[in-house]
Amino acid sequence: MSDLRPLFSPRGVAVVGASRSGAKLGAVMARSLRSFDGALGLVNSRNPDPGAGLHASVAAASQALGAPLDLAVLCVPAAACASAVEDAAAAGTRAALVCAGGFAESGADGAAHQAALLAAARRTGVRLLGPNTSGFFSPAHKLTASFVPAAGDVPAGGVAVVAASGGINHALSFLLADAGLGVSLAVGLGNATDVTAADVLDHLRGDDATRVVALHVESVADGRRLVESVRALTERVPVVALVVGRNDVAEFAQSHTGALATSWRTTRAALRQAGAVLVDDEQQLVDAVAALSHARLAPAADPGVGIVTAQAGPGLLLMDSLRGHGVAVPGLSDGTVARIGELLPPLTYQRNPVDTGRPSETFGAVLEAVAADPRVDAVATYALTEPDSIDLAATVPAASAGSAVPTLVGLGGAPEEVRQIRRRLHAAGVPAYGAPTSLATGVAALVEDARRQHARRDAAPVGGGGAAQADGGEDGPSPVVTRSAWDEDEAKALVERLGFRTMPRRACATDAEAHAALDAIGGPVAVKLLDAAVLHKTEIGGVRLGVRTHDELDEALTALRAAGADRVLVERMAPSGVDLIVGARRDPVFGPVVLLGLGGTVAEALQDVSLRVAPLSPAEAATMPDDLAGRALLEGFRGSPTLDRSELAGLLSALGTLLLDHPHLGDVEINPLRVTADGLVALDAVVTTKES
Amino acid sequence: MSDLRPLFSPRGVAVVGASRSGAKLGAVMARSLRSFDGALGLVNSRNPDPGAGLHASVAAASQALGAPLDLAVLCVPAAACASAVEDAAAAGTRAALVCAGGFAESGADGAAHQAALLAAARRTGVRLLGPNTSGFFSPAHKLTASFVPAAGDVPAGGVAVVAASGGINHALSFLLADAGLGVSLAVGLGNATDVTAADVLDHLRGDDATRVVALHVESVADGRRLVESVRALTERVPVVALVVGRNDVAEFAQSHTGALATSWRTTRAALRQAGAVLVDDEQQLVDAVAALSHARLAPAADPGVGIVTAQAGPGLLLMDSLRGHGVAVPGLSDGTVARIGELLPPLTYQRNPVDTGRPSETFGAVLEAVAADPRVDAVATYALTEPDSIDLAATVPAASAGSAVPTLVGLGGAPEEVRQIRRRLHAAGVPAYGAPTSLATGVAALVEDARRQHARRDAAPVGGGGAAQADGGEDGPSPVVTRSAWDEDEAKALVERLGFRTMPRRACATDAEAHAALDAIGGPVAVKLLDAAVLHKTEIGGVRLGVRTHDELDEALTALRAAGADRVLVERMAPSGVDLIVGARRDPVFGPVVLLGLGGTVAEALQDVSLRVAPLSPAEAATMPDDLAGRALLEGFRGSPTLDRSELAGLLSALGTLLLDHPHLGDVEINPLRVTADGLVALDAVVTTKES
Repeated sequence: MSDLRPLFSPRGVAVVGASRSGAKLGAVMARSLRSFDGALGLVNSRNPDPGAGLHASVAAASQALGAPLDLAVLCVPAAACASAVEDAAAAGTRAALVCAGGFAESGADGAAHQAALLAAARRTGVRLLGPNTSGFFSPAHKLTASFVPAAGDVPAGGVAVVAASGGINHALSFLLADAGLGVSLAVGLGNATDVTAADVLDHLRGDDATRVVALHVESVADGRRLVESVRALTERVPVVALVVGRNDVAEFAQSHTGALATSWRTTRAALRQAGAVLVDDEQQLVDAVAALSHARLAPAADPGVGIVTAQAGPGLLLMDSLRGHGVAVPGLSDGTVARIGELLPPLTYQRNPVDTGRPSETFGAVLEAVAADPRVDAVATYALTEPDSIDLAATVPAASAGSAVPTLVGLGGAPEEVRQIRRRLHAAGVPAYGAPTSLATGVAALVEDARRQHARRDAAPVGGGGAAQADGGEDGPSPVVTRSAWDEDEAKALVERLGFRTMPRRACATDAEAHAALDAIGGPVAVKLLDAAVLHKTEIGGVRLGVRTHDELDEALTALRAAGADRVLVERMAPSGVDLIVGARRDPVFGPVVLLGLGGTVAEALQDVSLRVAPLSPAEAATMPDDLAGRALLEGFRGSPTLDRSELAGLLSALGTLLLDHPHLGDVEINPLRVTADGLVALDAVVTTKES
Repeated sequence: MSDLRPLFSPRGVAVVGASRSGAKLGAVMARSLRSFDGALGLVNSRNPDPGAGLHASVAAASQALGAPLDLAVLCVPAAACASAVEDAAAAGTRAALVCAGGFAESGADGAAHQAALLAAARRTGVRLLGPNTSGFFSPAHKLTASFVPAAGDVPAGGVAVVAASGGINHALSFLLADAGLGVSLAVGLGNATDVTAADVLDHLRGDDATRVVALHVESVADGRRLVESVRALTERVPVVALVVGRNDVAEFAQSHTGALATSWRTTRAALRQAGAVLVDDEQQLVDAVAALSHARLAPAADPGVGIVTAQAGPGLLLMDSLRGHGVAVPGLSDGTVARIGELLPPLTYQRNPVDTGRPSETFGAVLEAVAADPRVDAVATYALTEPDSIDLAATVPAASAGSAVPTLVGLGGAPEEVRQIRRRLHAAGVPAYGAPTSLATGVAALVEDARRQHARRDAAPVGGGGAAQADGGEDGPSPVVTRSAWDEDEAKALVERLGFRTMPRRACATDAEAHAALDAIGGPVAVKLLDAAVLHKTEIGGVRLGVRTHDELDEALTALRAAGADRVLVERMAPSGVDLIVGARRDPVFGPVVLLGLGGTVAEALQDVSLRVAPLSPAEAATMPDDLAGRALLEGFRGSPTLDRSELAGLLSALGTLLLDHPHLGDVEINPLRVTADGLVALDAVVTTKES
């Protein structure tokens, strides 16, 4: 990993293509960078004017200023950028920002310019941000490398913004400022030809000023790399991620029903698995980082939240929203209720939510009592501001001082007054919001971050030894795994080695063998066409179920022969139960991923699927059923068998390891995998090679 | 409908229990009301001081002021409120506001006080707002009947707030003010013992200052009345509704899987059907009314939106969010693209979204060109504010002046600057937002309102004549409809009269009749236990499928006799297809409702159901499949038959009419109703009486 300090913390900056006035990029950038607290060299090779501070080259500027210019901000046309990088590198520059468009996003000529630019960067070792971005800014260093002038007014603070788009980088930073928060570093990646989101995340691991990261993702080139960067960074600071493209993806999925797992889903699942908190829009992103910039809960599977509200209506909205986020709002312990009973008049609701009525001088003590409850890991409080009532900006910090349990505040009232109180609360380290739903989003982000940390603690990376499972351990690589095509019998033999149970079966080449199989196995049996080249047997009439007698078997065999069967599989019918689909496949961006869904066309039409990137530990895999909208079906719905999660988790984990360890394998799908009273049974299995 | 003008537009106001100073309710109310531009009489019967303007009674105050005091604001204890109403009524008062708690929400004594208060109101004809509310305010009349002093600073405007909770009423009004909007009337209903949401909505029909209504609902006492009020009001102004309780309801539904349709769902479905736009939280509510307070689209099934963005990243977020709302973003016509090509440099994306790059002097002309496109009914535009760039607060109103196509603006930038530009845009009648997702919510609200209006235009109320269908028309009421219990054969006969198709069947008392039925109908048949007392035949082993031969029939009959069957139904097996569940039932709040869901346990576990209040026209019923998450299954998914929507719509409409016309009927459920290649076929039907 190369060092991005010359880019984001340069000792000096050169603006190449600068001018002293006007509205062109080189003039706007020169103005934006004027407040930088390091050296600033303006370079204009066509009209140099050293007396006015316009130098002929980066080298000349560096020499004149007597300072190294680590970063060159290139304000020259796309065609001139590659040679500008070479020139700057020769003068000691180690990083460049290219804001201009006209590169890969704009056709063949632009793509050639971008290739030349990247080649120059690679040759010289210069790290390159952009092209096609509005830049970055770092308020603590008074460094505004952005052509949006107001970016210079965003205050310094603990939030790092890493955005795919320069426009989103700015929009988010301004929204953060409006919420009373400041940024440590705000980056728009643009075309990301060299410096990617993963590079910036790696850089932030060493940045003590950053307390939380707001990540905006449009597309991902190297999924594994991004996952590793998020995983490493979230050990130190929380990451909140907004992935754009839910609906483009949905359209695509509608036109191609096979695509249960789409890129948007996969990106979200991979980031979450790596430890990020996911949000659905830019406002949630701001609300979530507002909480996580001040507080982080200890890792926990299900943190509890105490609600203290001065008005019942907003309290109900808050509780509804928290429950919608899946956040636990536990009943308070008897001791807490007794303590609150001493503090509040009777007839207020005191079990959680605690409805205080109008905030009085006991409000702080109520907050302390709720925070002290052993079931409470965070407190959410809402009140309308009232001038004759208590000062929340003083009361809340005082009440939560010295407590490990953070308190988050929601306020309603005259807008300017609310903004002022929020700023005071943020300054005191208390996350503060202007609406109940925003408060709920912030609280839910704390809880989700604690859950992600907890899941990771259980989810130690799976080692490479998983191959032994599939290859039969000491016997060395199995010929089954190295073959180029699998029929159902062979595919089942493969997944049995991973621990999948199957029903008794026999592959039969002749009718006599089939009849002998029926006798040996006992009816009812399923009789299926057996051919590695046929992946969808049912659709060509290649499956007959419930065959009990030799007469019925003859009838079935006749039908299957007509459907083209040379060989058949005779297999005992499974007991009834709920059907799952499990599988592993290779995602073009994230590599091997493991999938879990409910069986049947309804679940398929709903695209109700859970995804994880391999390797995944059994503990991580055990959480996959929670992602399914139809999970109630797996918990004994209407008398059906209950899923054994730990059995499923082991199988899912093994599927991921199988693909990781065997690069020539393509997809593995077990469909259906039936939840029976006696455990999971694979009723069909399909294995393909990578090229098939 | 009684007149609420004495409550909301009183000529004079009396504060009963007023005092001149202090923090008690009577003092706070007196201060809040000081700015009222009508007569204000302060009443304190215990410590009157007429010289200081504290009168002994409402009558004395009215006399001293020489003005009628239409509204009495009661600031006396709960126990004293009933007699205070009587006293005020005797002095000519026609409306009262009771803010205090200590009524029905607080136990038996409180309930008695509330009953006495309501009785006094009914006796005197005084209309009563509350108790247990923080009041209401009407900025245009400088009337602040609220104990939250800052409520007096909320500006006058076109939004009426009708909130179940006083706290939410205030929180919403402050959020509206922060968004640059003002209110015409803001009401918190509290216990709503007399004046309900429906009463206030009816009042607003005659209020010309109100251009849009923000409705917050916690619970509904009279669903039919609320639906009628919303339906009548949305003919004049849009209504945006937030219904709280999604998650309380979900917990309940989990514990009681039979409750596919819960109160939260039913309330949402009923309000939407009546013409309201639904939102999910209070921020969406503010964003939606911001759009609808300035603009309303003509009724349309699928209005198109043009997007003009100055930055690609926020434009992508906006488009993703609009598609998530189901809003059409059509490609622009060739003429528009050609016109934009003249206005913008090459290489910007110009088909929709139109990416302008940094706003230049052609920005207004681009907006005009997009608005003029025949496929565009509204324009959404986003830009970062840049001081050197154009003035959006001048450009956008100029560009949309004279056009029937509204333009909505999203802005990013320095917070104070954005707020100022938003205020200027709102003042010019242009909805303006501070974030892409908020802008998308506003645009989606315009589109949904246009769809709701369009749906209503098609959905003329169904007349009472529907009964003829079920009763056999000229033959008079059918004995089938008036019986007290229905077996499957009889239930099918009933629904056949509504137009449901069924398979050939025979009810059989003896084995001989069953064998004859098999011969007559032809196999394979289903053989089912026939008993009006048994609603769930399958669960007791009362159904045998696929019976082809007389031997199999004997076997089936033996099994059914063992399960308790006296009579059996022999019915031809239906062709395969996708199964639906349809039905009608009586909701305790909204009366007869019609339900549609997908068949099978997955759909049941997902609670994927569509609901409408009866009567519903076939046109309204035809939209019900759109509500289902699994609707793709009905559109020829993986080769299955396609639903004939108009056939389904006629059946759903007839089911609603059946329950409306026959008060003694309870539920009707057809499960499954199969979508076959030859149309819909009812495979089972259950009819119950209201008491059963």
